[in-house]
Amino acid sequence: MSAKNAFYAQSGGVTAVINASACGVIETCRKHSDKIANVYAGRNGIIGALTEELIDTNQESAENIAALKNTPSGAFGSCRFKLKSLEDNKREYERLIKVFKAHNIGYFFYNGGGDSADTCYKVSQLSEKMGYPVQAIHVPKTVDNDLPITDNCPGFGSVAKYIAVSTLEASYDVRSMAKTSTKIFVIEVMGRHAGWIAAAGALVEDYDIPVVTLFPEIDFDKDKFLAAVDAKVKQHGYCTIVVSEGAHYADGTFLAEQGTRDSFGHAQLGGAAPIVAGMVKDALGYKYHWAVADYLQRAARHLASESDVEQAYALGKAAVEKALEGKNAIMPTVVRESSTPYQWHIGEAPLSEVANVEKMMPMEFISADGYGITDACKEYLYPLIKGESYPAYDEKGMPKYATMKGAMIAKKLPNFEL
Amino acid sequence: MSAKNAFYAQSGGVTAVINASACGVIETCRKHSDKIANVYAGRNGIIGALTEELIDTNQESAENIAALKNTPSGAFGSCRFKLKSLEDNKREYERLIKVFKAHNIGYFFYNGGGDSADTCYKVSQLSEKMGYPVQAIHVPKTVDNDLPITDNCPGFGSVAKYIAVSTLEASYDVRSMAKTSTKIFVIEVMGRHAGWIAAAGALVEDYDIPVVTLFPEIDFDKDKFLAAVDAKVKQHGYCTIVVSEGAHYADGTFLAEQGTRDSFGHAQLGGAAPIVAGMVKDALGYKYHWAVADYLQRAARHLASESDVEQAYALGKAAVEKALEGKNAIMPTVVRESSTPYQWHIGEAPLSEVANVEKMMPMEFISADGYGITDACKEYLYPLIKGESYPAYDEKGMPKYATMKGAMIAKKLPNFEL
Repeated sequence: MSAKNAFYAQSGGVTAVINASACGVIETCRKHSDKIANVYAGRNGIIGALTEELIDTNQESAENIAALKNTPSGAFGSCRFKLKSLEDNKREYERLIKVFKAHNIGYFFYNGGGDSADTCYKVSQLSEKMGYPVQAIHVPKTVDNDLPITDNCPGFGSVAKYIAVSTLEASYDVRSMAKTSTKIFVIEVMGRHAGWIAAAGALVEDYDIPVVTLFPEIDFDKDKFLAAVDAKVKQHGYCTIVVSEGAHYADGTFLAEQGTRDSFGHAQLGGAAPIVAGMVKDALGYKYHWAVADYLQRAARHLASESDVEQAYALGKAAVEKALEGKNAIMPTVVRESSTPYQWHIGEAPLSEVANVEKMMPMEFISADGYGITDACKEYLYPLIKGESYPAYDEKGMPKYATMKGAMIAKKLPNFEL
Repeated sequence: MSAKNAFYAQSGGVTAVINASACGVIETCRKHSDKIANVYAGRNGIIGALTEELIDTNQESAENIAALKNTPSGAFGSCRFKLKSLEDNKREYERLIKVFKAHNIGYFFYNGGGDSADTCYKVSQLSEKMGYPVQAIHVPKTVDNDLPITDNCPGFGSVAKYIAVSTLEASYDVRSMAKTSTKIFVIEVMGRHAGWIAAAGALVEDYDIPVVTLFPEIDFDKDKFLAAVDAKVKQHGYCTIVVSEGAHYADGTFLAEQGTRDSFGHAQLGGAAPIVAGMVKDALGYKYHWAVADYLQRAARHLASESDVEQAYALGKAAVEKALEGKNAIMPTVVRESSTPYQWHIGEAPLSEVANVEKMMPMEFISADGYGITDACKEYLYPLIKGESYPAYDEKGMPKYATMKGAMIAKKLPNFEL
């Protein structure tokens, strides 16, 4: 039997290190070219499989593939496109299998979060039923850190490092200015459902910064919050506030969606940070600055965590190795052995236990007052932001990030309407 | 005659490298301890001189002073406190000279922008008139890059690098997602009067990113802007928008101040980025993300430009050396010899020509359509972001930034009310 091909796709919001996983997958496949002939990458994720837009990664040089390890974002394109139940989306699942069959694809490496784990699991089930069995392995990725079983998710550690460092730097800034000017600095961070990223901002407490953190896990209480901020300013002269985009009132209303309107009556365009800053100004009169990091935080490969880059690569590599061992419908995981010193190894989880399970931040990671983190949380977080993995820079002073040639495999099937 | 002391103060908004200038001043003074006995640093800037709160830098270890080179923000505290004309503020100028005299201060190194250059100049004039001549040297610092004569200002290069790199990274992110999700990314940058920082964002054009930049130098034309963005999206599938906080309509109204109101009728809390993003969404329907970098950009020592750090240090060092040569009422400057290869040396400018002169961005740096930068601008900018100067990190993964002990010199004068 001739060597099968592999299909690799990136799913959902991209990260600073998802390409490091791509690098791990492709480099490991290349080492086993007797068993895996080529890696086809989905152009714009799973949509590329449905529309038969397959990028021929054998056309990419070894140097370009190696450079993926240091390139943020999704080099092959990603998408937000969820295949739902087999019943509702049978046509699409069947199309996937058809495309895999037409291109002799025997391995499916899907790099994403909870939704893609679910899709991956269904492809492995359906392909078997359809008589064209594909080994489907999920490679974890999500800045939200919300996949179960694995100790952490690649992508999270680098966002956490960026937010911890940026919050520290901006706090030093406001500390310098507080005597006559800004006393409040608010930084808004990602995390609609869970406060993992906000918790990383709260680490600056260990560096003598007065900080109040607003988690989605804790219902917002305006009076209590203002009192907490005022106490910090009275004691330290200034206060940093880390607010999760998912922070909300007890009734579920997000802070960012407070019914604010522009002059045309349109709903205000969001941002929990300006809302919180204005609240402090109105009640306490302190001058403020605020920042919304948005994509900057998840794209910041220039400040990636070395742990995170290593794990992203290792999980991509392990996905291929496990496929070659005959494994199917699994996700390689990070298993923490100890935090100090930080030691971990690669484990695995059946996709049946990963799909549709969201891991929340444990309540024992949030301090008693609801505005900070506990020692247990710090012990969990620090290993994930450990070490610096810098990209190379060109002579002009800009990072050398890779762009793929993106040569396409010739289509073999009729067009498919999405 | 016994060796005089020096007084050093940080002024206005702080930067990623103002402490590198402090390091240059203090280390150079220490090398000439036969002539300069001690450097007293103003606690919270010039206010520290008025209130006689003088930090005894001789109490700081050589290691801690060296670490200033890699520490963002103002390690001694800064302030926004402008001494106006001699007539209006004579009492304060006289107090300054009295404090200098009481503490045997013969050198005044003032590290700031245009306002502090003016103050520095007046101190040199008044001290002479009052019979206690002080050599006043201004050390340039401003992220706004708006001081005259010097080729550039320390602080600007690092902000420029941070914005150029962050814009590139976030653009890669939106490029990955554009097929099914975000097509527009808006980043708001500092620069109320001049588009220097916005121009740095526009550098990503050289890295194949479709970008539209809104400068304060160009009156905002909504229809023309929307057409420019739409053309980029139609051609490339996505578009990055860099908007200066100072972008405004022809009548002077800032984009960030469009009369938007919250549900209580309060003026909306600002942010040109969400305004621009909403404008694109309303007119063109494209999904967007937006970021406001705010303090993150000027505090980002983790991504400082090596050129910038070197020049910040060199200007602090030169200030002391020029004082010891007997110079007064001057500012050391950066003189560019060539851009490729980048070569520069330290020059000097009389404060009479620096004070109250604002350097604008040349119009020939902005492209004909008003939304980009010219080759001349790029040739100017790249040397300033050249090289990476990383701080050290601790074993937990956080940068090792210095905090001063801040031991105070005993007061000798009656209290002074600000």
